[in-house]
Amino acid sequence: MICWLWKASDMTEPLKVALLGCGVVGSAVARRLHDDARDLAARVGAPLQITGVAVRDITRPRPESGVDASLFTTDAESLVERADLVVELMGGIEPARSLLLRAIEHGASVVTANKALLGEDGPQLFEAADARGVDLSYEAAVAGAIPLLRPLRESLAGDSVRRVMGIVNGTTNFILDKMDRTGAALDDVLAEAQQLGYAEADPTADVEGYDARAKAAILASLAFHTRVATPDVYCEGIMGVTAEDIRAARKIGLVVKLLAICERTDEGVSARVHPTLVPRSHPLGSVREAFNAVFVETELAGQLMFYGKGAGAEPTASAVLGDLVQAARHRLDGGHGPGESAYADLPLLPIAQSQTSYFVRLDVLDRPGVLAQVANVLGEQGVSIESMRQGVRRSGDGLAMLEIVTHRASDAALARTVDQLRMLDDVHAVTSVLRVEGM
Amino acid sequence: MICWLWKASDMTEPLKVALLGCGVVGSAVARRLHDDARDLAARVGAPLQITGVAVRDITRPRPESGVDASLFTTDAESLVERADLVVELMGGIEPARSLLLRAIEHGASVVTANKALLGEDGPQLFEAADARGVDLSYEAAVAGAIPLLRPLRESLAGDSVRRVMGIVNGTTNFILDKMDRTGAALDDVLAEAQQLGYAEADPTADVEGYDARAKAAILASLAFHTRVATPDVYCEGIMGVTAEDIRAARKIGLVVKLLAICERTDEGVSARVHPTLVPRSHPLGSVREAFNAVFVETELAGQLMFYGKGAGAEPTASAVLGDLVQAARHRLDGGHGPGESAYADLPLLPIAQSQTSYFVRLDVLDRPGVLAQVANVLGEQGVSIESMRQGVRRSGDGLAMLEIVTHRASDAALARTVDQLRMLDDVHAVTSVLRVEGM
Repeated sequence: MICWLWKASDMTEPLKVALLGCGVVGSAVARRLHDDARDLAARVGAPLQITGVAVRDITRPRPESGVDASLFTTDAESLVERADLVVELMGGIEPARSLLLRAIEHGASVVTANKALLGEDGPQLFEAADARGVDLSYEAAVAGAIPLLRPLRESLAGDSVRRVMGIVNGTTNFILDKMDRTGAALDDVLAEAQQLGYAEADPTADVEGYDARAKAAILASLAFHTRVATPDVYCEGIMGVTAEDIRAARKIGLVVKLLAICERTDEGVSARVHPTLVPRSHPLGSVREAFNAVFVETELAGQLMFYGKGAGAEPTASAVLGDLVQAARHRLDGGHGPGESAYADLPLLPIAQSQTSYFVRLDVLDRPGVLAQVANVLGEQGVSIESMRQGVRRSGDGLAMLEIVTHRASDAALARTVDQLRMLDDVHAVTSVLRVEGM
Repeated sequence: MICWLWKASDMTEPLKVALLGCGVVGSAVARRLHDDARDLAARVGAPLQITGVAVRDITRPRPESGVDASLFTTDAESLVERADLVVELMGGIEPARSLLLRAIEHGASVVTANKALLGEDGPQLFEAADARGVDLSYEAAVAGAIPLLRPLRESLAGDSVRRVMGIVNGTTNFILDKMDRTGAALDDVLAEAQQLGYAEADPTADVEGYDARAKAAILASLAFHTRVATPDVYCEGIMGVTAEDIRAARKIGLVVKLLAICERTDEGVSARVHPTLVPRSHPLGSVREAFNAVFVETELAGQLMFYGKGAGAEPTASAVLGDLVQAARHRLDGGHGPGESAYADLPLLPIAQSQTSYFVRLDVLDRPGVLAQVANVLGEQGVSIESMRQGVRRSGDGLAMLEIVTHRASDAALARTVDQLRMLDDVHAVTSVLRVEGM
């Protein structure tokens, strides 16, 4: 009778789980596997048993993980060879790639949160997993806790995605949101974000957009069944965004967000990351602090948005555990998730061919005929004007501020337009150029 | 060589799809199965072939569906017996229930958008599907196009859902949003919604909350692995919401939404539908027009939100087709989706035990001591006050308006408090009582 309590877990042999890496996310995953063992066993149909945790430094105690000290090992290679399920949370390209390939080769299903590796080598890994008939899941790699990749891959499997547009980096959203709410300069807000732990001591990967770029590559690959690697994604970070840009945007109902934008047009697929103006009334416009949100447009479903925490140990662990439970269920029922190596492989378009709108702010000489000159340049490049606004005049310097929002045109035509505006005698300076979406 | 174009579709025998019902959603599904046959075949790994469409009136032409006239039949029974996949879009309890059970019995996987049936008889259907080892999918039954049920069931399978709180009825959100933006009365806005096609000629199912109630039952069942049927859900519609309620809410930064709220506490599970005040800054507060949005709180992932179109032929077809592609993939790889008949079966709590806040508006006699009397009543019931505000005094009638927002307490204590306030001599009338969430 004492067995009754374990009935759910005893229905079949345990599945052997290997963890690679035991930092904050790894510890949170291990802790949950330990604390909620019975609940997870009931959901899977078999217990999930940690058979080993690969770490670099075996001597460091990790009591927060709840893992017995005897299970830590530095021999990741042999660990993955005898696992049913491998969870990779080490990050970086090597040895993560080799270990995942070895795990797949030995028939394990793998779960990873490694966006850098997927952005660089996704196709190789997907092909290996498909060939071996095992699951390769990576929900945690993009937008942390938000269930996004599974809905894109499965729920929308009968629909066609046209566009994915997301705030996928919490650090930069925290900074831009704070600048928007306080009017402060980027450097000051960045320093504060570092103090609060929202930005790292070396914030390059976040503020230069590299983190968002790897995620854009993953999103575009998945949404359009096309191989998009990280270097294929056009990337501009937020370091050029000024308090003045944000103030000017605010005046016309817009807000600056760092967006990863993946689009499918008749010509092909494009993926880009850059600071973008969006209307405050747009669902992405009200995403505050370090939250992430991804806006998806499809042919049938129309506009969808997924919102939640993009980072943090527990949110990331939620996504990893969701993948792990699914992969475990698949092992028991003999099926596996939809393969991803069957690519449509649409042509990849350069940023110049992307269609977007521009917000341009100019300091111009305050004299008759300037507006006509500016309007002429736009007209010559086939760029039509959505709105034009004469800003507050500066005192004494003989200059006026001019703000233009264009209609959509190719990025190349818009770039040429800005180049020509710079060359006009009456244009003192082009003080700001930002792309606009969602209008 | 001419076969090459069909390579993707020729990889295996077609899967036989039976459609039950061919209204606007059925036609959109059929049209897509026809027009995008090759694309869908590539995604599934086998062609999806419509083998029949069951309709009541076989003589009515349905050119918009793209289905050959010879495939329409009134003999739904024999149609489902020879299908691999059955899509039920007839609505109503019978014959939908019998046909789905018959399809399952004959080994077909089934997809349905029938919230009424699931809210009444979900458990019976889930058990039948589990016993037979086939998929029963119903993404379209709640929040139309929004991928919500699959994420709840699969992506969050390693997490614990604490609360699901959603705008799941587009008609009532359209009405409440319009009232909020224009200040108009409910009757006027309802008439306009009927003219625009946002509300039906008989709007009872929407405005009385019955539609949202069936969806709340489905959501609570799925989120908490507990059998919740439609009658278990407490339900209040929007007919009592006045323009004055909305104006008063607006003044303190709140907005009225009809929410379906499913909660899990230490005591058990509760599910309720009622007009609710939420802060404008809450993610649900900015959901406009006929959009749906569902806010989910989990132990690890924290706060998530899913947003999109809740109704319409094409959005609903997107969800149906996503389910269909998944069920088809499962048939080919031998697996199936996670079963749902393994219930945790937590106790179901009545509305009286739900924890919520109240917004109460009173007309009181404008004389000293009234506030103290009112505060005493709240104190006696153990209800603490979050804020109290004396409204604009009415001219000449000797009355003042008093608005109270309480802290969270049991619904029973709040109801008793309101009853006692009504009995105070100095209280002329309780003009409004609304629940508040998300503060």
